[in-house]
Amino acid sequence: MAVKKVAVIMGSDSDFPTVSKAIKKLKAFEIPYEVHVMSAHRTPEKAVSFARGAKAAGFGVIIAAAGMAAHLAGFLAANTTLPVIGVPIKSANLGGMEALLATVQMPSGIPVATVAIDGAENAAILAAQMLALSDEALAGKLEQAKKDMEEGVARKDAVIQERLKDL
Amino acid sequence: MAVKKVAVIMGSDSDFPTVSKAIKKLKAFEIPYEVHVMSAHRTPEKAVSFARGAKAAGFGVIIAAAGMAAHLAGFLAANTTLPVIGVPIKSANLGGMEALLATVQMPSGIPVATVAIDGAENAAILAAQMLALSDEALAGKLEQAKKDMEEGVARKDAVIQERLKDL
Amino acid sequence: MAVKKVAVIMGSDSDFPTVSKAIKKLKAFEIPYEVHVMSAHRTPEKAVSFARGAKAAGFGVIIAAAGMAAHLAGFLAANTTLPVIGVPIKSANLGGMEALLATVQMPSGIPVATVAIDGAENAAILAAQMLALSDEALAGKLEQAKKDMEEGVARKDAVIQERLKDL
Amino acid sequence: MAVKKVAVIMGSDSDFPTVSKAIKKLKAFEIPYEVHVMSAHRTPEKAVSFARGAKAAGFGVIIAAAGMAAHLAGFLAANTTLPVIGVPIKSANLGGMEALLATVQMPSGIPVATVAIDGAENAAILAAQMLALSDEALAGKLEQAKKDMEEGVARKDAVIQERLKDL
Amino acid sequence: MAVKKVAVIMGSDSDFPTVSKAIKKLKAFEIPYEVHVMSAHRTPEKAVSFARGAKAAGFGVIIAAAGMAAHLAGFLAANTTLPVIGVPIKSANLGGMEALLATVQMPSGIPVATVAIDGAENAAILAAQMLALSDEALAGKLEQAKKDMEEGVARKDAVIQERLKDL
Amino acid sequence: MAVKKVAVIMGSDSDFPTVSKAIKKLKAFEIPYEVHVMSAHRTPEKAVSFARGAKAAGFGVIIAAAGMAAHLAGFLAANTTLPVIGVPIKSANLGGMEALLATVQMPSGIPVATVAIDGAENAAILAAQMLALSDEALAGKLEQAKKDMEEGVARKDAVIQERLKDL
Amino acid sequence: MAVKKVAVIMGSDSDFPTVSKAIKKLKAFEIPYEVHVMSAHRTPEKAVSFARGAKAAGFGVIIAAAGMAAHLAGFLAANTTLPVIGVPIKSANLGGMEALLATVQMPSGIPVATVAIDGAENAAILAAQMLALSDEALAGKLEQAKKDMEEGVARKDAVIQERLKDL
Amino acid sequence: MAVKKVAVIMGSDSDFPTVSKAIKKLKAFEIPYEVHVMSAHRTPEKAVSFARGAKAAGFGVIIAAAGMAAHLAGFLAANTTLPVIGVPIKSANLGGMEALLATVQMPSGIPVATVAIDGAENAAILAAQMLALSDEALAGKLEQAKKDMEEGVARKDAVIQERLKDL
Repeated sequence: MAVKKVAVIMGSDSDFPTVSKAIKKLKAFEIPYEVHVMSAHRTPEKAVSFARGAKAAGFGVIIAAAGMAAHLAGFLAANTTLPVIGVPIKSANLGGMEALLATVQMPSGIPVATVAIDGAENAAILAAQMLALSDEALAGKLEQAKKDMEEGVARKDAVIQERLKDL
Repeated sequence: MAVKKVAVIMGSDSDFPTVSKAIKKLKAFEIPYEVHVMSAHRTPEKAVSFARGAKAAGFGVIIAAAGMAAHLAGFLAANTTLPVIGVPIKSANLGGMEALLATVQMPSGIPVATVAIDGAENAAILAAQMLALSDEALAGKLEQAKKDMEEGVARKDAVIQERLKDL
Repeated sequence: MAVKKVAVIMGSDSDFPTVSKAIKKLKAFEIPYEVHVMSAHRTPEKAVSFARGAKAAGFGVIIAAAGMAAHLAGFLAANTTLPVIGVPIKSANLGGMEALLATVQMPSGIPVATVAIDGAENAAILAAQMLALSDEALAGKLEQAKKDMEEGVARKDAVIQERLKDL
Repeated sequence: MAVKKVAVIMGSDSDFPTVSKAIKKLKAFEIPYEVHVMSAHRTPEKAVSFARGAKAAGFGVIIAAAGMAAHLAGFLAANTTLPVIGVPIKSANLGGMEALLATVQMPSGIPVATVAIDGAENAAILAAQMLALSDEALAGKLEQAKKDMEEGVARKDAVIQERLKDL
Repeated sequence: MAVKKVAVIMGSDSDFPTVSKAIKKLKAFEIPYEVHVMSAHRTPEKAVSFARGAKAAGFGVIIAAAGMAAHLAGFLAANTTLPVIGVPIKSANLGGMEALLATVQMPSGIPVATVAIDGAENAAILAAQMLALSDEALAGKLEQAKKDMEEGVARKDAVIQERLKDL
Repeated sequence: MAVKKVAVIMGSDSDFPTVSKAIKKLKAFEIPYEVHVMSAHRTPEKAVSFARGAKAAGFGVIIAAAGMAAHLAGFLAANTTLPVIGVPIKSANLGGMEALLATVQMPSGIPVATVAIDGAENAAILAAQMLALSDEALAGKLEQAKKDMEEGVARKDAVIQERLKDL
Repeated sequence: MAVKKVAVIMGSDSDFPTVSKAIKKLKAFEIPYEVHVMSAHRTPEKAVSFARGAKAAGFGVIIAAAGMAAHLAGFLAANTTLPVIGVPIKSANLGGMEALLATVQMPSGIPVATVAIDGAENAAILAAQMLALSDEALAGKLEQAKKDMEEGVARKDAVIQERLKDL
Repeated sequence: MAVKKVAVIMGSDSDFPTVSKAIKKLKAFEIPYEVHVMSAHRTPEKAVSFARGAKAAGFGVIIAAAGMAAHLAGFLAANTTLPVIGVPIKSANLGGMEALLATVQMPSGIPVATVAIDGAENAAILAAQMLALSDEALAGKLEQAKKDMEEGVARKDAVIQERLKDL
């Protein structure tokens, strides 16, 4: 079975700095991906046809990042049965609360797997977890990442012990 | 010029009790209308084709009522240049705040004329105000409604003077 | 029929940087407009007489931008049957949430067509959509703007493909 | 100097049950009052002329109760230099938060003395405190009410000691 | 490859009425599942050992439903590399907002795929979508469910046309 | 009757920049005032004795500014029958929302006349309005200030007409 | 050393149903306690003298429950160096959010140990944890309660397994 | 009886600047302490074993600081009967509101003594108050700190009197 790709869709190119954290993580896991700017509002046709063809095009998971009245993830989810992960993007005025609610509060029948505001890195890890259900090598990498993270905390604890001496 | 119709679209038939206030108001103004259940998430194709054909089908204004992550109004607005009025519907858990934010906080380029949570009656009045820009008879009805409303307040003031006696 | 003007009213001259986005858009659509500073609280008489005379003065739509306990749009709407578009302006302390609620949560009978916090550009597009109901040339411009926007997204997608190479 | 009256203005007759708590309190303090239904949106002219004539008509303080996008208190305050007390009324959907923000977040130059959501009784006490600045008899009643309140707490404490026995 | 099970974990048995919607959906999709009451706070050891052993025990996805300071989903996610879906449960006082934030706002490294407040049915659909990545029969059922949903809307539209006659 | 003083109390000296706007306004109205740092939490005894003696000391109104869990205004109001005006001070984390709620949501019996977050200038105007109830000269100054404010808006409107030329 | 008592103070006798959960828990732990109605606003003097004398009167911990602009806990904390536990009480309009913020957001120097909205039972457990620092018998009871709670979850899990059969 | 230590646990080393205020305060009170970076999500095992062994290791109180979906304090509390003080850390997007709710809204049975967002200094004072229940010397230091604080306010009042001259 060919490895499934992850689609990373952002509603606006201004979301790229946040979204790039997801891309780097996918790269680190050696998961194939494609990245596109697409909008539920500005390019609805392109978004529909992308979502409807995503499975056939070899995608396994779609990550969608959008801000304000963030409809992108829900709109893609409406047009595919692939799991869609929504990343609410922080806004200038309401801190991303509106993007969070517009992404997560989906009606029955069309789920969006929502992560934290600006949580693009977690979106990539979640996509990896989904793909790892049928990919033991990837599952192994996730286990390793968990251990590295744990060791990272230990190193930070050591640093803090040093900083305590200066208080 | 033929009179333009108003489309009243609701995301779920459970929104009908709220939406019916808009319908009654349109009726009172003798504005032709059509009512449909349509969902940005459950029937995206139907919604797209409705919105794209709305102008040619003789509609002048679209009223869209939806709750939770309310994408309906924005989604219709993405597919037409007719003005779209959004009515956020109250939800069980967050009082409609998420529907309000998901309706009003639209990105630049795709406005939704948002009214209050459950504000279906005002949506109909707003639609009438838009159509009255080129319909003096309708403009006259709006003026009359404003006067009636003013007189209604005067009658309520009289009632209150009576009730004061019982305090 | 003479072309109807759009009135752009702001509650304070400090709102001008935000409001100017609406003005530029109206200019781009070649819609005639007037701009005024007027306050529901500081110049109530001027605001009342402006709103009452707006239709006779050739205005078709009023855009009202105000912050904090933003009463301007609702107050103008109380004194005219023209459609009034409200633009809640971001505040220093609550991110514009109070201006949004004070603008959108109008009681039955007096609608305000509310757009996003600081959404002045969308206010102008919405005004154009209303006027386009009886102005096919303007309707054509709106269609064109929608296509341009769609193409703009395609260009941004191309840029992102370039930036991906640097990740 | 004649005793100044308190005007109790409500935006809708549905606010009467809440507002009646203010009226009873004014009665208890033997402060003369008038009660009216008046709306910043539905009867703007009546509201303007009332506010402008209030001082000359013998009023000292205005209490204004309104819900949703509660503009009434601010609107009256814009048209008088008498102190205006705002009572935000609880709404069905957002608990009165929008009425609170629309009442209290007034721009510089036009204060509204805001009390709690549905805090009509406190509005009456606050009005009494203002009038008591030049009315020693009323000041004495306020002192007495404070003592009564203190004793009321002592009585409640005694009741609780009884109820403890049943736990 | 044996079919993977879904674990449905709830923080309190009072969550069962909400959670049962997920169970019914899993049943409808013929996905094997287990249901347990387990708490990050009251039975931390049991929760740890369950999460750590979940993959080896044949689980593919974990659904975790909890209210208030909802730590359950995040806590399970901390102890497994399986995807964890979080269902924030509505609370008596804050409408589930605190459960939503406590579930979705996870730090980098430990994602929780969060669905709407009380969105148990969507949690089951999302789990099905994840498992369908390597199960074409299940993918087919999801496609069918999407079509059924679309047809359901058409039926509701017909019902509304009838109800319109009574307005 | 001697002119009554206004007490301006702040909970922390860090509130001085905001509070100074109230002081300047009182100066402009030639209202005598005293300014003190006093805290419901850090100097409860001093605050109690100040509030209890305020009337006898010649004060007519107390303005109290405090941030976070802002108890100062309510605490002073608990110990006097003079009207107390509360100014919620913006906080670093929640924008002053907690100070607003802690100031305005007072229980029955103890009103605090609350103004906007950081609304110190309005607090001074409100104090002036209260004192003007028995001081016609001050009432005249308030009328004049209202007119000046109205003219100020006219001047700003003229400036905006100039700036429009540069758009 | 004599066993220290816990003081349970409520701002209003209407808080008794919630507060009684704390009292029952203290009883279950055999911790001596006293219960009083006392208000920062209605009986400030009584509250001051209680707090100042609490340590000498044999109290070790104070639990304070209050709603709305809940100043009681902070006010008692200002007048004692004993630990004060604050229980925000749910309100009719804002769900207790204002009581939570008014209780927890204390300025530096005067902590209040805040528990959940209506979290009276947890307040009693927290008080027990504090007293158990120097009372090994009480510490043992807390360990036992933790085990009972764990077993309670196991029993609930068994019940759920039964209810699953009926789905 | 040996003096009990305070454990200061932070979820991330980025919380150190805030947490250091607690450490300095503990130092000032000469309370022994240990500081560690530990995470409910990244190092769950380490956190469990720390909490379970804390009492035996000579700790009396645990202070836990964490941001976003802040589970740390609740998680430690689930694994010990020592009192746990939670410090919600401000986040980039929601101002710490999610950390506050995730820390304070604990279910019955597992209290967390929550202080203000970023309220690390108060966490240390609260810990001192708990330990002082069986340490009269420490109780004396707390009394002294209260007096110092009171005098500090008096000094600030004097400074303000000077600054008034420059207004």
